Amino acid sequence: MKLGAIEAGGTKFVCAIGDEEGSIFEKIVIPTEAPEITMPKVYEFFKGKGIERMGVGSFGPIDLNEKAGTYGQIQKTPKIDWIGFPLADSLSEKLGVPVTVDTDVNVAALSESRWGNATDVDTCLYITVGTGIGAGAVVNGQTLKGLSHPEMGHIGVRRHEEDSFSGACPYHQDCLEGMASGPAIEARWGKAGVELSEDPRVWEIEAHYLAQALVNYIYIISPERIIMGGGVMQQTHLFDLIRKKVVEMLNGYVSSPRLTEENINEYIVPPGLTNEAGVKGALGLAMK
Amino acid sequence: MKLGAIEAGGTKFVCAIGDEEGSIFEKIVIPTEAPEITMPKVYEFFKGKGIERMGVGSFGPIDLNEKAGTYGQIQKTPKIDWIGFPLADSLSEKLGVPVTVDTDVNVAALSESRWGNATDVDTCLYITVGTGIGAGAVVNGQTLKGLSHPEMGHIGVRRHEEDSFSGACPYHQDCLEGMASGPAIEARWGKAGVELSEDPRVWEIEAHYLAQALVNYIYIISPERIIMGGGVMQQTHLFDLIRKKVVEMLNGYVSSPRLTEENINEYIVPPGLTNEAGVKGALGLAMK
Ligand SMILES: Nc1ncnc2c1ncn2[C@@H]1O[C@H](COP(=O)(O)OP(=O)(O)O)[C@@H](O)[C@H]1O
Ligand SMILES: Nc1ncnc2c1ncn2[C@@H]1O[C@H](COP(=O)(O)OP(=O)(O)O)[C@@H](O)[C@H]1O
Ligand SMILES: [Zn+2]
Ligand SMILES: [Zn+2]
Repeated sequence: MKLGAIEAGGTKFVCAIGDEEGSIFEKIVIPTEAPEITMPKVYEFFKGKGIERMGVGSFGPIDLNEKAGTYGQIQKTPKIDWIGFPLADSLSEKLGVPVTVDTDVNVAALSESRWGNATDVDTCLYITVGTGIGAGAVVNGQTLKGLSHPEMGHIGVRRHEEDSFSGACPYHQDCLEGMASGPAIEARWGKAGVELSEDPRVWEIEAHYLAQALVNYIYIISPERIIMGGGVMQQTHLFDLIRKKVVEMLNGYVSSPRLTEENINEYIVPPGLTNEAGVKGALGLAMK
Repeated sequence: MKLGAIEAGGTKFVCAIGDEEGSIFEKIVIPTEAPEITMPKVYEFFKGKGIERMGVGSFGPIDLNEKAGTYGQIQKTPKIDWIGFPLADSLSEKLGVPVTVDTDVNVAALSESRWGNATDVDTCLYITVGTGIGAGAVVNGQTLKGLSHPEMGHIGVRRHEEDSFSGACPYHQDCLEGMASGPAIEARWGKAGVELSEDPRVWEIEAHYLAQALVNYIYIISPERIIMGGGVMQQTHLFDLIRKKVVEMLNGYVSSPRLTEENINEYIVPPGLTNEAGVKGALGLAMK
């Protein structure tokens, strides 16, 4: 069966045709401009290619409630041209196929669970630490949705005792994203993260917030693996700092062999897929 | 099909025989003593009754990892006689039927989703605020499990500015359970919660912690309904305090009609089932 897949991002739409094995036969990249400019190019690419279903991993927030009349519609976003755009319905109408949408982070989690670093588990969480902080999860083979979609990047965190930064989240100020996103690092230290690699204070504080978040995710979802991606995680030394703090904070409370000092390296890991993660995950969505 | 159900609690085992509609035909209550005393009575009750499957909602922690050799085994618990007891395997062996176990709070969530206050949604969360704080969830019809089982009662919370209580959790001191369980209330104020109904400071602080937890659950799982039970929630005025704070803390961030001031009364609710919740949920487990 031929399937359509779109990774709809804030800067580009990656569109692909593939199959149920995750093979990709054809792919193009279309810049994200206003819907009237971008979408006709998208329809054009897929038209007449014989796809039977389509999956879309979208920038957001996007309505994931299948019972709502607004399923697959882009919600309030800084990209104002897109607010209210019915992404799923318009694709489905133009191409005559069923369209499944999900958040970019849920799709990344799905992709890792099918083809990446979480193929051996049933439940995994993917977190990206970049311009924002977002996370998605796969629970028993399905992405985690509910009310609308999780906003895991905005949970409350406890302040590091040496941190007086007031926080950068426009909604909550000092939530996780407000304290630990790439822009938060830059606002706190006056320089972008990439220039701060050598300053241990930066990463001690960063790891303090990220580890707290992971501990909350473990307590609430108890994923069998956590995958960390995004620009800030390019500071690969962060992995060990975070792992160490997670083990300390859990303090042996959750008894699982995965959460010991010896095994934590295989519990908190970088992504297994790089370039094609988004579009492959969208194929995964189209499959169900 | 006849099904067996057990609500295995710290003080009593409620054992029942029922069917796939949730009807209960026969029920007994057996006190929880050491396994050698309690379990033979349990086997005796079910023997020869023609049950084909069994569900057990158990006090815990209990191993829920179906891939582990220790599935259904009681883990470290203050009831030391039960540590390491293979609850699922021993029932399955003695009665010759497949046994599914889950935590008491997951079973309560399942019960509410089948027969109680969450029959109209796919994803719900059940939290009990009593001697401890525990929560369980149903996601797309299945209870939420992963690594072992969630420990949602132990998430980190931010301190109320007028609260100097150091916290009562033996593992984390000032986690949610440490700050907001029944014993935490008692330790903070020198009196049990039931005697403090008239003191608004008590419930302001209590609601501050519980609302924070619900907000984190909303950000992480985004359940379509939250059901709050347990001894402390007998202070029914707490519901409105919590609802108000949840709406305030979310600050419009998660856009869902369920989370508005008008609709929050139907989002955060007491349990719909009372006496038979645990044992009915265990029937629900046996069904799958
Ligand atoms: N090597 C790096 N070290 C630290 N921070 C980085 C690095 N690369 C990118 N970042 C930060 O990550 C953020 C961009 O995140 P990224 O995941 O690349 O994009 P986005 O989140 O916008 O999709 C920026 O705030 C940037 O400063
Ligand atoms: N009406 C009440 N008001 C406030 N607190 C209560 C009330 N009833 C019970 N509690 C508290 O709830 C706790 C017991 O919780 P409960 O859910 O009844 O049992 P358990 O958690 O042990 O199963 C005790 O700490 C008790 O002080
Ligand atoms: Zn925020
Ligand atoms: Zn605790």
